[in-house]
Amino acid sequence: MRLRGRKGIREELEAQPELVVLDPKPYKGRWSEFFGNENPIHVELGMGKGKFISDMSSRNPDVNYIGIDMYDELVRRAALKARRAHAEADRGETDKLNLALALVNIETIADVFAEDEIERVYLNFSDPWPKKKHARRRLTHEAFVNRYLQFLNERGEIHFKTDSRTLFEFSLNSFSDMGLRMRNISLDLHGEGIREDLVLTEYETKFVEQGMAIYRVEVVAGREALVRHLNELTRRES
Amino acid sequence: MRLRGRKGIREELEAQPELVVLDPKPYKGRWSEFFGNENPIHVELGMGKGKFISDMSSRNPDVNYIGIDMYDELVRRAALKARRAHAEADRGETDKLNLALALVNIETIADVFAEDEIERVYLNFSDPWPKKKHARRRLTHEAFVNRYLQFLNERGEIHFKTDSRTLFEFSLNSFSDMGLRMRNISLDLHGEGIREDLVLTEYETKFVEQGMAIYRVEVVAGREALVRHLNELTRRES
Repeated sequence: MRLRGRKGIREELEAQPELVVLDPKPYKGRWSEFFGNENPIHVELGMGKGKFISDMSSRNPDVNYIGIDMYDELVRRAALKARRAHAEADRGETDKLNLALALVNIETIADVFAEDEIERVYLNFSDPWPKKKHARRRLTHEAFVNRYLQFLNERGEIHFKTDSRTLFEFSLNSFSDMGLRMRNISLDLHGEGIREDLVLTEYETKFVEQGMAIYRVEVVAGREALVRHLNELTRRES
Repeated sequence: MRLRGRKGIREELEAQPELVVLDPKPYKGRWSEFFGNENPIHVELGMGKGKFISDMSSRNPDVNYIGIDMYDELVRRAALKARRAHAEADRGETDKLNLALALVNIETIADVFAEDEIERVYLNFSDPWPKKKHARRRLTHEAFVNRYLQFLNERGEIHFKTDSRTLFEFSLNSFSDMGLRMRNISLDLHGEGIREDLVLTEYETKFVEQGMAIYRVEVVAGREALVRHLNELTRRES
């Protein structure tokens, strides 16, 4: 029975190749072809049930989004959610969404994106891997971040949020030790009211309702992004 | 009566010129003469009742410490505490302590220390000035930090701790926006047990007993300090 269930899921996923990418490696360096335009590409590493990537992609039609996770069932749910979100946004008759949901183990991410192909990485509520011996599995460990830097372009940024104080502390030190510039560091993102401008994930909505603090930081990875950031700072002062 | 009280304090302070500096400006560029040696000088901006600076100076005889505050009564208490701490450390017959307690309004700090004269700044539990319109009074505001950078030397560092989440968040962004390298960022300094290696302030002991989180960061300000930090990171990896 379970096997038939899984087989059913796989068939459901295979039936929507315009949205679901089960074999993403052939798209390395060719994601613009998948979307049919040259818009910037933002990737969420670990999309879970896909609320964030669905909302983001339906809100921002001029950006292409790729949501990644490693379980068929999560991709299936994210596909349902995405179609619903885009139907509600009701942008007319376009068949092609500005969204891909890809089945990827993040360990193999370097096989999926080519140099300069991506403009932004979102890491939302990644597994904190609290034991020290598992530090290398944290998605903000230097070994992972170095892979992101490989495929982020000149305007590249990493946007990271979490409810885990220990993971956030680890991540601030990781980014800082790598010499990456951080900005908009928040130790209580919704402390002065829900930041609806920043789309909330499923986890996040639940945590905020429980009064928990959400931590967030943006990392300025690409050179052009850094120059823009410095210009903003100069303007702010003058 | 109150006037006589204050006058009494002033006389008590004047009676210990080897420890208490009521008029610090003439020492600008000449603090080594005050201490009678060329040891590095660490400064605590806002020492309060002086527990931290007393403990630090009695623990580390090869560093000269200057504790600063703007109220006579705090300097008086700090002097008492310092003499007690050094007597307990019992390092024999030296009259001259490796400590100065100076009456300074931090606004005038540029008149008190010369370029390259100081090796480390400690900011412990500084006033958070929570209202946005008072942001410029926070001791980690760019305007203040720029003054510290003027007198910090090549090995210069800023060590900052606080119980205020909002001040810490502000400070991380301030340091980061200034392009300063941070390290050893802690969002719960004593979370895995009291860090006795880092001397605790009066406030800190109380806050930790109440289960509150203490935030801490080190800022690598001088060029030599940065090179040393990068070497440590490289060694850690290999």
